[in-house]
Amino acid sequence: MARQLLLNAFHMNCVGHICHGLWRHPRDRSREYLRQDWWNTLAGTLERGLFDGLFLADIVGTYDVYAGNAEAALAGAVQVPVNDPLLLVPGMAQTTRHLGFGVTVNLSYEAPYLLARRFSTLDHLTEGRIGWNVVTGYLDSAARAMGYERQMAHDQRYDRADEYMEIVHRLWEQSWDSDAVRYDRESGIFTDPAKVRPIDYRGRYYRVEGIHLSEPSPQRSPVIFQAGSSPRGARFAAQHAECIFVMGLSKEAVKQTVERITRELAAQGRRREDVRILAGLTVVVGATSREAEEKYAEYCRYASPEGGLTHFASSTGVDFSRFDLDEPITERKSEANQSALAAFTRKHQGEPWTVRRLLEQMKLGNRNGAFVGTPSEVADEMQSWMVEADVDGFNLVHTVVPECFEEFVDLVLPELQSRGIYKTAYAEGTFREKLLSQRRYFRAR
Amino acid sequence: MARQLLLNAFHMNCVGHICHGLWRHPRDRSREYLRQDWWNTLAGTLERGLFDGLFLADIVGTYDVYAGNAEAALAGAVQVPVNDPLLLVPGMAQTTRHLGFGVTVNLSYEAPYLLARRFSTLDHLTEGRIGWNVVTGYLDSAARAMGYERQMAHDQRYDRADEYMEIVHRLWEQSWDSDAVRYDRESGIFTDPAKVRPIDYRGRYYRVEGIHLSEPSPQRSPVIFQAGSSPRGARFAAQHAECIFVMGLSKEAVKQTVERITRELAAQGRRREDVRILAGLTVVVGATSREAEEKYAEYCRYASPEGGLTHFASSTGVDFSRFDLDEPITERKSEANQSALAAFTRKHQGEPWTVRRLLEQMKLGNRNGAFVGTPSEVADEMQSWMVEADVDGFNLVHTVVPECFEEFVDLVLPELQSRGIYKTAYAEGTFREKLLSQRRYFRAR
Repeated sequence: MARQLLLNAFHMNCVGHICHGLWRHPRDRSREYLRQDWWNTLAGTLERGLFDGLFLADIVGTYDVYAGNAEAALAGAVQVPVNDPLLLVPGMAQTTRHLGFGVTVNLSYEAPYLLARRFSTLDHLTEGRIGWNVVTGYLDSAARAMGYERQMAHDQRYDRADEYMEIVHRLWEQSWDSDAVRYDRESGIFTDPAKVRPIDYRGRYYRVEGIHLSEPSPQRSPVIFQAGSSPRGARFAAQHAECIFVMGLSKEAVKQTVERITRELAAQGRRREDVRILAGLTVVVGATSREAEEKYAEYCRYASPEGGLTHFASSTGVDFSRFDLDEPITERKSEANQSALAAFTRKHQGEPWTVRRLLEQMKLGNRNGAFVGTPSEVADEMQSWMVEADVDGFNLVHTVVPECFEEFVDLVLPELQSRGIYKTAYAEGTFREKLLSQRRYFRAR
Repeated sequence: MARQLLLNAFHMNCVGHICHGLWRHPRDRSREYLRQDWWNTLAGTLERGLFDGLFLADIVGTYDVYAGNAEAALAGAVQVPVNDPLLLVPGMAQTTRHLGFGVTVNLSYEAPYLLARRFSTLDHLTEGRIGWNVVTGYLDSAARAMGYERQMAHDQRYDRADEYMEIVHRLWEQSWDSDAVRYDRESGIFTDPAKVRPIDYRGRYYRVEGIHLSEPSPQRSPVIFQAGSSPRGARFAAQHAECIFVMGLSKEAVKQTVERITRELAAQGRRREDVRILAGLTVVVGATSREAEEKYAEYCRYASPEGGLTHFASSTGVDFSRFDLDEPITERKSEANQSALAAFTRKHQGEPWTVRRLLEQMKLGNRNGAFVGTPSEVADEMQSWMVEADVDGFNLVHTVVPECFEEFVDLVLPELQSRGIYKTAYAEGTFREKLLSQRRYFRAR
């Protein structure tokens, strides 16, 4: 049997996620993010399309690097206003049966003891369909909202996150035996105390002593997602992640990223096939090439390259407002910290980057580009990424919602199914069993 | 028109809440707390009964004062295992239209910036039906799970909570103007940046700088519930609360509490009628007195006074396992901190308290007692509490679920309605409008 591709929808509890400005499109309904029934309808569409999961991004803080304030982000709805993503899950779980939920939570400002309980609660309520996209955050604006001058240094954040993961996995995996709950009405023993034990963690950053508050849930640990792209982040992913999410501008770039991940996994004693790697993917599909191109051109008329630039300024730490349109973007005028700018210039070696060129790239409000074509052309491209870049599947970035997901389900999925690379029915089991054919988290002891 | 009484159901995301041991009753279904549909069915019953709200308790930490460990709590399911309560709300909100949700969250270990967003998200998803029961926690076991040796001193916790409330209300009430979101597709302006401003709070315990992440929700601030019974806690309630929850062993005791609250309110420039005071209430109702008494006796056979003692040990800080059954409970043998024991002895002045007497009181697994009788007798008692103790309504403590709520709806509510002291239909509006006939939080500026 051909390798089956995995598919998540990529969304966020706000209006503008990645394709900035598309909320202006007349058919876009992302404004309805405040309503539970909007999310339930979306989840229903995804389940109709046999999507493995809905991947919810999140950001704590605002994008205020551009011009040194949040005005452009607010005006353009660049991931602000943004609501809590975890609270969307129970409602959607209620109206679906198979769809998984991978939810981004920044661990830096949450007590591990409480976050562990939150995920256990969700794993119970969803009957084993929850995943956690672990992030450490990267915004000074978030740090200031938490009482710090600025965020912790990058690598130190990950050292701290290593401790955090150790704590939450001990709570999820070790504190309660599977048969600890007896629920014995006769003897009056609900839980056998001998089968529950406190963890006693003393690290450099955290100290946690106590039993986990929740009884064992179907998956215990949620499925762990990670998207770290820095060297330290990639090591973190190789140590902890079960699914790794990569964003790349080209198949070649993604191929290199997957190779690097494979090396990092090997350094941790893990194999490439121990994880699932999903690539970000933006699709504009039409019944004919012409229809697809016309739709793409129409979307571009509503997209906001300025919104994309605002977002990208915070991603890189470079305040692009300080540069003239055609002026080479250099360190001199930027307020970026050294590492952010170094990463930025490393990515674009040799090219004279200017704001004009950046804006030209951001036709859909971001730099990722899109596959534009017929179902067959889109399927070709996806298949070639799987074969050549060795990805296991895709995180489908939304353009105009809900039509982008409806069209993908109606047009592209049948094509993928006819090629034998997409399931025709859900498998039974938890999110982890569906994604990884495994019952327990790999580090469970 | 006669004064209409307010009614909340009192529950918790766990098996054993207040009437310990009743999970052993053959008809009790509290074990289903892990399932969303269990909660939805409960919410449906409450809405059928025109309940104003479902009040969800919570505890962070375990009851480990009794015998110095959590064994008795685990064995008896004394509020452990316990899941996160906030995550129950969106699902129930989806299947109801009027029911409000008052949810306990301990602020001591949550970043105010994130908790504010969580409540805003819930206020959006519930369309203005969320309330927050503010607690500061009282368990050393919680503190140890958060990396501290022990909890912060009692009054200091409330000083810190004062700062916390100031921060979250600034985020909810002041950061976004009501017309900040323009959602103007033509101009591409989603939010008018001139109508959004950061808060910049610098206190002794907290420092928070940033705009609120969520756009204004129907109520902005959730309805603020509080249940502080200490002098400092009562002052906190008088400063911040819109609804105050009191637990009392007798009508006379509750009357005194209400008088004290009234004095505290006056000291803050507020009137008694500015808040709603709800008393905890346990009811066992039967069509005849005899049926009610038999049901009560049956419940008592399953209840666990030992579970009640385990709970009470943590409430008071007194390790009752150190006393023989008939030995007077004194400071000498207890490890309680002075203030907890002082409060305990103050409450029971002159009486020679022993473990045996405590256990005898805990017929239903706690010391609160119950109203046992026909619908008419129960209604008489409720009415007399309203008149004599000046309470606005009740928090209905659950015994055997779901039958306790179903019977209350079917038997007691028609009686209350026929007396003209209970509504016959919901009013329109938010939770705050329903409870207080006010649109905005009273401290909103």
